[in-house]
Amino acid sequence: MGALRLPSLSSIFTSSSSTTRCLRSPSIFRRHHRLRLPPRPLTAANLSAQSTAEKEVSPVTSEGANQKSRVQDRAITPRSQDFNAWYLDIIANAELADYGPVRGTMVIRPYGYAIWEAIQDYLNVKFKETGHSNMYFPQFIPYSFIEKEASHVEGFSPELAVVTIGGGKELEEKLVVRPTSETIVNHMFTQWIHSYRDLPLMVNQWANVTRWEMRTKPFVRTLEFLWQEGHTAHATLEEAEKEFTDETGQRQHVWQTSWAISTRFIGGIIMTHGDDAGLMLPPKIAPIQVVIVPIWKKDDERTGVLNAALSVNEILKTAGIKVKIDDTDQRTPGWKFNFWEMKGVPLRIEIGPRDVLSESVVISRRDVPGKQGKVFGISMEASILVAYVKDNNIVDVNSYNELKDAISQGKWARGPWSASDKDELRVKEETGATIRCFPFEQPEGRSKACLMTGNPAEEVAIFAKSY
Amino acid sequence: MGALRLPSLSSIFTSSSSTTRCLRSPSIFRRHHRLRLPPRPLTAANLSAQSTAEKEVSPVTSEGANQKSRVQDRAITPRSQDFNAWYLDIIANAELADYGPVRGTMVIRPYGYAIWEAIQDYLNVKFKETGHSNMYFPQFIPYSFIEKEASHVEGFSPELAVVTIGGGKELEEKLVVRPTSETIVNHMFTQWIHSYRDLPLMVNQWANVTRWEMRTKPFVRTLEFLWQEGHTAHATLEEAEKEFTDETGQRQHVWQTSWAISTRFIGGIIMTHGDDAGLMLPPKIAPIQVVIVPIWKKDDERTGVLNAALSVNEILKTAGIKVKIDDTDQRTPGWKFNFWEMKGVPLRIEIGPRDVLSESVVISRRDVPGKQGKVFGISMEASILVAYVKDNNIVDVNSYNELKDAISQGKWARGPWSASDKDELRVKEETGATIRCFPFEQPEGRSKACLMTGNPAEEVAIFAKSY
Repeated sequence: MGALRLPSLSSIFTSSSSTTRCLRSPSIFRRHHRLRLPPRPLTAANLSAQSTAEKEVSPVTSEGANQKSRVQDRAITPRSQDFNAWYLDIIANAELADYGPVRGTMVIRPYGYAIWEAIQDYLNVKFKETGHSNMYFPQFIPYSFIEKEASHVEGFSPELAVVTIGGGKELEEKLVVRPTSETIVNHMFTQWIHSYRDLPLMVNQWANVTRWEMRTKPFVRTLEFLWQEGHTAHATLEEAEKEFTDETGQRQHVWQTSWAISTRFIGGIIMTHGDDAGLMLPPKIAPIQVVIVPIWKKDDERTGVLNAALSVNEILKTAGIKVKIDDTDQRTPGWKFNFWEMKGVPLRIEIGPRDVLSESVVISRRDVPGKQGKVFGISMEASILVAYVKDNNIVDVNSYNELKDAISQGKWARGPWSASDKDELRVKEETGATIRCFPFEQPEGRSKACLMTGNPAEEVAIFAKSY
Repeated sequence: MGALRLPSLSSIFTSSSSTTRCLRSPSIFRRHHRLRLPPRPLTAANLSAQSTAEKEVSPVTSEGANQKSRVQDRAITPRSQDFNAWYLDIIANAELADYGPVRGTMVIRPYGYAIWEAIQDYLNVKFKETGHSNMYFPQFIPYSFIEKEASHVEGFSPELAVVTIGGGKELEEKLVVRPTSETIVNHMFTQWIHSYRDLPLMVNQWANVTRWEMRTKPFVRTLEFLWQEGHTAHATLEEAEKEFTDETGQRQHVWQTSWAISTRFIGGIIMTHGDDAGLMLPPKIAPIQVVIVPIWKKDDERTGVLNAALSVNEILKTAGIKVKIDDTDQRTPGWKFNFWEMKGVPLRIEIGPRDVLSESVVISRRDVPGKQGKVFGISMEASILVAYVKDNNIVDVNSYNELKDAISQGKWARGPWSASDKDELRVKEETGATIRCFPFEQPEGRSKACLMTGNPAEEVAIFAKSY
């Protein structure tokens, strides 16, 4: 049996659809005390990012960036220039994590922890659907357990944190802070598995583990990290039929599996998906999936714009989308765009006075920079807006075949359209898709040919399956 | 500032309503290996309960029960006879927990951990609704942090587990395995709070903590336990207005609170709610809220009964109720009744051939023993059954006023009824309740007077608000 090591992973995640209601704080237990706050100079000695309110004024610097050449108003070192500095800048500026007081340890801040929670929510559903039960094994393991298995001694000895004092006294047997739970899981399995009737045994635990790494980096390599570890024991059908019936009490074997995913994965997400503008989060694990930025200039525009933004916020929240309005008037819209792009929010909704009049919004994708990722004139009408936000994979199409491909992949198709109602009916009958809207703001550029007829088309239409 | 200690609590919990779909196991990472299982004599040296399949044959014994005098077929020491033995028997037989290999540590088994998860689900929703964010602080704390605060040294020194070796080397500064995170939280708060604009700061973490207890008992006192610890920092409105505007860099104070709930609470639930028959779980934290026991004698009854049980199972599962069918034919219904009572399942549904014919079920409450807690003739019709199971607080009423009271409290009212349709309409108009059913099996006993008219009544009816 070998040690449980961390895999390299590629995976997809789904979001938890939580709705927010208004309840009072549980008054379980409350102690009030006062904490003295010393004035704290902003240094690069730790990752602590400044408060949002201060960010624009003095961009935070971070450890490990040796060759920074920063553009004004940009706190993130370009990725191409210094990958390591870029990585640490993102973690600091997006407030994902901070250094703990012990070398190599990490505080996972709320924005970073929310990513981990989305991963947990996704996996917990999968684990339970497939018959696994969560449970918890103690983290202290007798040193002798590690010694029992040669591969464990070899693999983990240099990485162990060892408790030698407990309750003020030297311990008779040293205790290892788990680097993985395999040895203790196996110890317990032998107590629970008496025959094939106790199999399969499929358990999982969410826990912290400790490995005394010498070179550390937030998320990807820290002394302590969070993970889940799945441990299962199975009898093969053949083995089960052979036995475990004939209960002779002889030693038998079970088949075991182990698998894990950890907070290191978050480091991988940052590295894989980020760019010079900052973090880029897949929608399904993003703590904020949509940010709404209301835009107004004159005071008399303010109320209308804010009301529209609140209404859009409610629509999306009710649909289970994690949405946030940034309605502070201490920041310009441009600053907000940059800030939320840096935080990796997948979709931005802009609402200005013109949008209020046309009852539509502008939606920008984080993963498609500039105008290319920007769509104007999406209706505020709940069903259209929600459908668009939930599936914003709009594909530009120029022919009916391309449209059919896009729809069959569950995407939306946007293309020039000047065909008849009869043609639209044909599209519906053959693909299930109907015209969801003619965007108010049409793309500029060369004249277009209708995707269906080839005739000149004044407008593009967006097709999607009905919900 | 003082140390965070554990409160005594009384609280209510709600369940997570999870639906089950059929997905395949994630093939994230898989290692196969074989574990040798030694033949294991059943001893009292640890809490390991036997597998369900073996329980009837040889009742498990457990540590700490000195004066047991067991009735045949009963594995639980009577509570009145030996409270401690009773407590340990429940933990062993209901498979809530087991001893870990290190003295004073505990393995929380799936059935026990599911109770903790229900508590987590409930609190996480509350915490987030009230503006708290989850995050994670590292568990290793420099020894100097503990020494900084006199109350911590005094309170925790005798309870500390101390890491002195890391990566094979003696550490320069010893590390404490957190007994609570207050010192490290405060250390980080000073880095994050620069002015009143950073307040309130309201965070929570789910974590394991370690206290070197000398006398231990599963759940209530173990070296390591799981908890959540909430930590918040607030500026009062007055203080905020005074400042934090005048940024002189002087030391300022913030108001802090801390609160916690831990797995110790599960020990409290066992002690508070259990009885001689075993565990008794409040529905909102029960891993299984309803168990269905199909009952048949003849082979030709089997299919009909099992199909009805499966149908009831689907109805309840769809309604978000945690339900389980016990359809093994290796156990008698009586054995199953005792077993699931011992496991503390709040409601039992019995379905026999007669019930199939009348399209109804029999429902028994765990918390009301014997016939008193048993209601016959509840319709299998989905809306009636779900409503009954979700709110099985049926109140027996003998007058219209009592009926009105029960309905206004959201309960069901059961009472003698021989009044007219017009009277029923009046009840509906005045209380919103209608007759849900006339139970097939009517309570025996003395003749009854209609709760509305006072005339003799042949039957009792159950009233409830429509859904």
